[in-house]
Amino acid sequence: MKLSELHLKTLREAPKDEVSQSTILLLRARFIEKLGAGVYNYLPFGLRTLNKISNIIREEMEKIGAFEVLMASLHPRQKWEITQRWGSFDALFKVQSRSEQEFALGPTHEEIITPLAANFISSYKDLPLYLFQIQTKFRDEPRPKSGILRGREFLMKDLYSFHASAEDLAVFYEKMKKVYVRIFKRLGLRVLITEGSGGTFSAGYSHEFQTPVTSGEDTVLVCPQCSFARNQEVAVKIVNCPRCGAPLEEIKCAEVGNIFQLGHKYSQPFDLVFIDKDGEKKWVEMGCYGIGVSRLLGVIGEVYHDEFGFTWPLAVAPFKYQLITLTSGNPSINKKIKKTAEDLYRALLKNNEEVLYDDRDISAGEKFKDADLIGAPWRLVVSEKALNQGALELKKRNKKTSQLIKLKKFVKILSSKKDNG
Amino acid sequence: MKLSELHLKTLREAPKDEVSQSTILLLRARFIEKLGAGVYNYLPFGLRTLNKISNIIREEMEKIGAFEVLMASLHPRQKWEITQRWGSFDALFKVQSRSEQEFALGPTHEEIITPLAANFISSYKDLPLYLFQIQTKFRDEPRPKSGILRGREFLMKDLYSFHASAEDLAVFYEKMKKVYVRIFKRLGLRVLITEGSGGTFSAGYSHEFQTPVTSGEDTVLVCPQCSFARNQEVAVKIVNCPRCGAPLEEIKCAEVGNIFQLGHKYSQPFDLVFIDKDGEKKWVEMGCYGIGVSRLLGVIGEVYHDEFGFTWPLAVAPFKYQLITLTSGNPSINKKIKKTAEDLYRALLKNNEEVLYDDRDISAGEKFKDADLIGAPWRLVVSEKALNQGALELKKRNKKTSQLIKLKKFVKILSSKKDNG
Repeated sequence: MKLSELHLKTLREAPKDEVSQSTILLLRARFIEKLGAGVYNYLPFGLRTLNKISNIIREEMEKIGAFEVLMASLHPRQKWEITQRWGSFDALFKVQSRSEQEFALGPTHEEIITPLAANFISSYKDLPLYLFQIQTKFRDEPRPKSGILRGREFLMKDLYSFHASAEDLAVFYEKMKKVYVRIFKRLGLRVLITEGSGGTFSAGYSHEFQTPVTSGEDTVLVCPQCSFARNQEVAVKIVNCPRCGAPLEEIKCAEVGNIFQLGHKYSQPFDLVFIDKDGEKKWVEMGCYGIGVSRLLGVIGEVYHDEFGFTWPLAVAPFKYQLITLTSGNPSINKKIKKTAEDLYRALLKNNEEVLYDDRDISAGEKFKDADLIGAPWRLVVSEKALNQGALELKKRNKKTSQLIKLKKFVKILSSKKDNG
Repeated sequence: MKLSELHLKTLREAPKDEVSQSTILLLRARFIEKLGAGVYNYLPFGLRTLNKISNIIREEMEKIGAFEVLMASLHPRQKWEITQRWGSFDALFKVQSRSEQEFALGPTHEEIITPLAANFISSYKDLPLYLFQIQTKFRDEPRPKSGILRGREFLMKDLYSFHASAEDLAVFYEKMKKVYVRIFKRLGLRVLITEGSGGTFSAGYSHEFQTPVTSGEDTVLVCPQCSFARNQEVAVKIVNCPRCGAPLEEIKCAEVGNIFQLGHKYSQPFDLVFIDKDGEKKWVEMGCYGIGVSRLLGVIGEVYHDEFGFTWPLAVAPFKYQLITLTSGNPSINKKIKKTAEDLYRALLKNNEEVLYDDRDISAGEKFKDADLIGAPWRLVVSEKALNQGALELKKRNKKTSQLIKLKKFVKILSSKKDNG
């Protein structure tokens, strides 16, 4: 992508009405644009990172044998009446059609997936079944103040599992804990697995995946001696670890995922049943497993930034390279710099490398500032000084110093990488 | 994908409340599930085809240098007040938050993209600029009776172009006509380019892309002698071709795309300006270009089906192959059939071929019926008869007869294809 064609201008000043550091940087680097409280548009860089996060999650869902679906956002009122959540789910946006039909804007999809699963399930032979989607959710948050960390409209991955027995659900639930830890690791995040409250989703068993960040909305009580961790919400008066007695520590966290053993909570009202081996009709055991995809854009940004901008892990960076030309006072040298950079840009694209090419007619200082702000893991600079040695300047975003690398050698490394797949 | 794992059961009977033939087949083949009038969920096969349509469109957008964004669905009322469409856009879904803020559910995104573009545009040097998204739209259709052809919630690609002059807009507009024809051709569709009414979007110049289908909602007047074509809506009383005088023919069509020269219609109320070469402040000239992505799933299905099911073009088929095992009465032969099919399935996956493997324990007749209904372009059958000749049965979906192909030869063709990329 060429910055001269994108015409996008970064912001030097922090927007006044945001408190979340990652949201401020996402706005300044033009990953996102704010449309209203808790409502954001994704600009090209933000959408690229969002898609990378989605694709890592999608890969891991497919690995466990889950099938992808895409459910509607307009939920008929009657579905939410069946679970008695039409009146009790506080954050439900409600909308009425001209023909006076009422809809909820899907804040979660249990009311839709449960009757949908009846198309798949009739016998114990049809179980287990895993269905997931990556879809926009709508929640009428009363005070959406944490930027992209708590949106009124946000992207979420939700997986639903269907089982013939509580035992099978429990085994899969434990497996999902490991899958989630692997997903967050691939995204560059450390997580604490905490016992959660379950909220309006489940009367039963639930866990949260919490990433330590100073700006987090949640406080997690963590035992420094054993693995105990619990959300303060559900452990208000606990001071010492209930397992080993050590004094608990308070850590500010952002929730990035949650998992619930739903049991019959939804299969019962929707009468989602199957015929078991013994010939008896039974309710399907359900679990649900969420990950806040657009929230992750914020949480990863909270963890990976410094005073100058983002330091994205390669797995989610919008680009691997930011290529920069440093113009010289001499027009013929300038021409050579421009040609070298253009050739390099094409070589990178040919090798399927993701590169943002800053070919704008602005100062070196502005280009370096923007590169630090946008945060591609590698900065490539074509300058007169380096060219005199047949080289280009290579710098890691999170290192202070750059190194010279021979142009020929760099191009050779690129193409050898391609041959190896 | 293995059908034994997906557990999805096709429907033998047509649902009673649908009239659109493609929607009936999409429901029977479990590509989609109906949630309410004009509201559908996408099941795994439907989502695969939807993604293929999206990706073809995305590729063509990137080819013309357009950048992808993703805009919100919750549009603050104030944006729609600026264009005076809050009160006049009939199909606008309106929703209120707990804090009494009002939002429109985005039925189109001019009210969002125009102020958004101000982040990119300040000088003539920033023009032209092309931004697109593939995003859900919401429209409160009073009588959504055409199934997936006219949804209340549907997927759309919308491209917006920004220009320094009406001339530049006109040149790009003509270019987009060709790009659209190419896109629809890649999707297997013939289109008529008709002069449209523009609706509430534009007082100016607009064109529609109409695909002839008997179930179409639109009637297009077409001249059999010259290239004249016009939507009957805007040409009610015309009987003879205004260009060559020949009597016009009426053709039922489904609209698959539309393009509009918006001029200053949106840049003026949002004050989207740029400084021109002459130093003067001018309003940006805008165009917008829509394609109904989820509607295309229906329109392609209308064109590509027979009495037994879909005959998808390869470019949008959910799978290239449907692999079927025919079981025998003899257990040792059955074992061999099963092993051959499993090996073949793995070989296909290894070569990145998209294959639906029907490994269910049901009759041959049911498997063939489902294969015809789902409509993968190629059917592969592993049977005792073919295996005795070291072969498998290969049949094109739209041909009556099958052919035997030696297993070794088939696997060799697969791997040679991989080497050639």
